[in-house]
Amino acid sequence: MPSGLHAAQVTVVGLGLMGGSLAAALTARRACRRVVGVARREETVRQALAIGAIHAGTCDLAAGVGEADVVVLATPVRTIVELVGAVGPLLPHGCLLTDLGSTKQAVAQAMQALPPHVRPVGGHPMCGKETAGLAAAEPSLYEGATYVLTPLARTDGEALALAQELVRAVGARPLLLDASRHDALAAAISHLPYLLAISLVATAEGLSDEAAWDVAAGGFRDTSRLAASEERMMLDILLTNRAAVQGMLSRFQKQLARLAHLLETGDEVGLQAVMTAAAQRRRRCYQ
Amino acid sequence: MPSGLHAAQVTVVGLGLMGGSLAAALTARRACRRVVGVARREETVRQALAIGAIHAGTCDLAAGVGEADVVVLATPVRTIVELVGAVGPLLPHGCLLTDLGSTKQAVAQAMQALPPHVRPVGGHPMCGKETAGLAAAEPSLYEGATYVLTPLARTDGEALALAQELVRAVGARPLLLDASRHDALAAAISHLPYLLAISLVATAEGLSDEAAWDVAAGGFRDTSRLAASEERMMLDILLTNRAAVQGMLSRFQKQLARLAHLLETGDEVGLQAVMTAAAQRRRRCYQ
Repeated sequence: MPSGLHAAQVTVVGLGLMGGSLAAALTARRACRRVVGVARREETVRQALAIGAIHAGTCDLAAGVGEADVVVLATPVRTIVELVGAVGPLLPHGCLLTDLGSTKQAVAQAMQALPPHVRPVGGHPMCGKETAGLAAAEPSLYEGATYVLTPLARTDGEALALAQELVRAVGARPLLLDASRHDALAAAISHLPYLLAISLVATAEGLSDEAAWDVAAGGFRDTSRLAASEERMMLDILLTNRAAVQGMLSRFQKQLARLAHLLETGDEVGLQAVMTAAAQRRRRCYQ
Repeated sequence: MPSGLHAAQVTVVGLGLMGGSLAAALTARRACRRVVGVARREETVRQALAIGAIHAGTCDLAAGVGEADVVVLATPVRTIVELVGAVGPLLPHGCLLTDLGSTKQAVAQAMQALPPHVRPVGGHPMCGKETAGLAAAEPSLYEGATYVLTPLARTDGEALALAQELVRAVGARPLLLDASRHDALAAAISHLPYLLAISLVATAEGLSDEAAWDVAAGGFRDTSRLAASEERMMLDILLTNRAAVQGMLSRFQKQLARLAHLLETGDEVGLQAVMTAAAQRRRRCYQ
């Protein structure tokens, strides 16, 4: 492993929205010596080369990571878990292995089993958009975003420092969290909102009244936005974070039942208290 | 009542975000002869005059509506219902009375009882933002928005035509709906999303982990946006549309329980079917 990111070859495995944007940001900012992309399809490699997101690309995982100083796995979570299992023997001594997976405990568990010559650190950038794929990638995607890093017990200081350098190099702010704490927080602020969005769309669809879509304004558009998220990515997230998501769903259902009760009993004072608390908290968060 | 909007004096009662923006749009587009504003506070009248949103203003309801051809009530819904009860005897013969209230059945009921010389039509523009007050008003707020009109049994064709002219004059698209159908649709696409947003914020707050707000990204911001809506307005909405909102809450709770069950049983195929249906519906709606 070289002393810093500047001298490193970074290989990004998976050139979708997140991996493609990371590669493009590293390349555009000349943050490292060389950016290599690994994709399943030749067409994606060609496209990534054409837009200048990578210096070189391949569909051969072993070839792509064989000389890497840093490897970033940027696929849906369950594929990341599989890749962590497969990639270990292919990595050079001292290679930093990190990922962009949206849940961290399953990845951390797989990373613990890596051979000792690999240096793993989990990662999850808190940015994205609901359009998937390399065509939607943009080098500015990470700018200003919180980027969670989840060190393992085995992660050494040098590896963590390099991971933090990578985060800052694409314009994001590193936030160190334990994997299980990350997953609980992500269940509340990301996976639960997704489930609400798809249930909201299903509820509106259930009215079987086409006028609903004419009447739908900014509030519906925003509240339902996450429903358009890429299904494969979201399915992996839900299935690798089931316990936390179920816990959060249950908390949410209690909150909603409380509101339903206040409404049913016409408890104006009680309703207003809940509404004011939420409004103040929301305004404090995004002022 | 003059033959068209161009010759009319329009009086807007309530100069908050919605009323102030409507007045400003009518004035800026020279859509009518004269725009008069009625507000509770002198300060608001002065401010509306200063930004050129109205030609004249007053805190005296009788004076403000006494020579109006069109009166638009632009306050929270329960105040609209009170105003409809109070304003009838003050209105000139043939005056068009409409409103911007977010629920329509309670307003329609009050409008039915108006004296026969008044011509009522309910209205609800499907636009807005979560910042309340005249300071947030903008003449472009209505542009491109769907603007629901809910004619009563007593509404004549001439009054409806004038109301439609008013809608188009501020850049919106009129959509005629029965008041009860409007309220059911609004419950699904507006009032339910609000309840989801405040319950989501309450759930995140319930974690008592400040890192939640650092980790919160675009998805949470959008899904929770409506939680910052003005409480007074939302309370009136919920309390004048209780039955429809409760019905919609109950439908939503069933959808969510179904998702929770699929997750609990690890039913990947079932989960994916719900996710794909919602994603396709959402993408079709906002492509």
